[in-house]
Amino acid sequence: MKVREMMDKYFIYVYPKDSIDDVSIKMENSKRFTAPVLNKEMKLEGWITSFDITKGLRENKKLISEVMSPVEDIKYLHENDPSRLAVLETSKSRLISIPVLDENEAVTGVIRAFEIVNTLSSLYEVKVLKLYQAMHKQLKGVSWDELMDAAAIITTRATGVKTKAKDYEERIKNSTFGEAIWTTGGLESFFVGLISVGELVIARRVGKSKK
Amino acid sequence: MKVREMMDKYFIYVYPKDSIDDVSIKMENSKRFTAPVLNKEMKLEGWITSFDITKGLRENKKLISEVMSPVEDIKYLHENDPSRLAVLETSKSRLISIPVLDENEAVTGVIRAFEIVNTLSSLYEVKVLKLYQAMHKQLKGVSWDELMDAAAIITTRATGVKTKAKDYEERIKNSTFGEAIWTTGGLESFFVGLISVGELVIARRVGKSKK
Repeated sequence: MKVREMMDKYFIYVYPKDSIDDVSIKMENSKRFTAPVLNKEMKLEGWITSFDITKGLRENKKLISEVMSPVEDIKYLHENDPSRLAVLETSKSRLISIPVLDENEAVTGVIRAFEIVNTLSSLYEVKVLKLYQAMHKQLKGVSWDELMDAAAIITTRATGVKTKAKDYEERIKNSTFGEAIWTTGGLESFFVGLISVGELVIARRVGKSKK
Repeated sequence: MKVREMMDKYFIYVYPKDSIDDVSIKMENSKRFTAPVLNKEMKLEGWITSFDITKGLRENKKLISEVMSPVEDIKYLHENDPSRLAVLETSKSRLISIPVLDENEAVTGVIRAFEIVNTLSSLYEVKVLKLYQAMHKQLKGVSWDELMDAAAIITTRATGVKTKAKDYEERIKNSTFGEAIWTTGGLESFFVGLISVGELVIARRVGKSKK
């Protein structure tokens, strides 16, 4: 996934000659705590945050150019950078948003913590059922019922609580990958559980074919 | 994972009688765009954002109580809520931060988009090698070399590019779960790849034991 696919294309931007008053109203109305300061060619001239605005208002400054961070202090990304960079940069520098530039260095979007949370959390919302369906499709010669039986056996073993195939199926319809990894104690444990199920169902298939 | 484990315990908070000027400086210095407004018992009285501050400064208001959002408009979470709720709420309501209450309804922390990005992204940074190591531990009777051989075969099949076991091992040492799911096209595809590897390695083990 590229930064381009994750960024907000409908970002607000301002000019150095805009008044601090006007920009503060624009930021309040659009609910943006930050904005790139651009020239007429959409190239970065600076960056403002609500902190620059509150300081400017307190100190009776008039123009954005008086309060903005200079262009050399701004972290930015390019459209074709991997989204992973945006995640790492946000996490590391605790930036609430990062401007995104195209190949001509014009600003075409802004990546914000929200976009990242949305993208990352969509993964967490994948239903565990989907993973079992993918597994079922892959394990040719294994029926869905056999797969659910194996999953129920592994769950019974792991939790000590007798679980039936039908109950297991009901449960994975409602539970998400995010819940599953939090419940099992992490990504590795979750995968080990799934591998155990695969192993059991294959062992049983092999056992049957020997009969 | 609970909200308690994810929240920032060192949050800033303000009182209704604080002056807007003082609070704006506090927010600038601590780099916080939002803060809970509390009473002396640490209970929620309101909520402020930098937007309330800029509006207050422009309109010459003096006290936080004049510009804060009332308590009934504030979304909050409890310490024992699942972290998943914080992620969903942030993603859905586009809230930059959410106060967290203990059993006495006192504010004990704030969940911010950063904490969420950090927590979610730590999952993405798990090395694919770790998943294979967990798989190897689970698949008793399969050697590490057999597992890497199987993975190289599956990769060669899937990509059409001849891959050797040693190269595959090198690759997974450096690649993360996040990169892997982005490369393979999603969680289900990544997972199907792992199952294929497991299936192949088990089939080869069974084949060997028959000899």
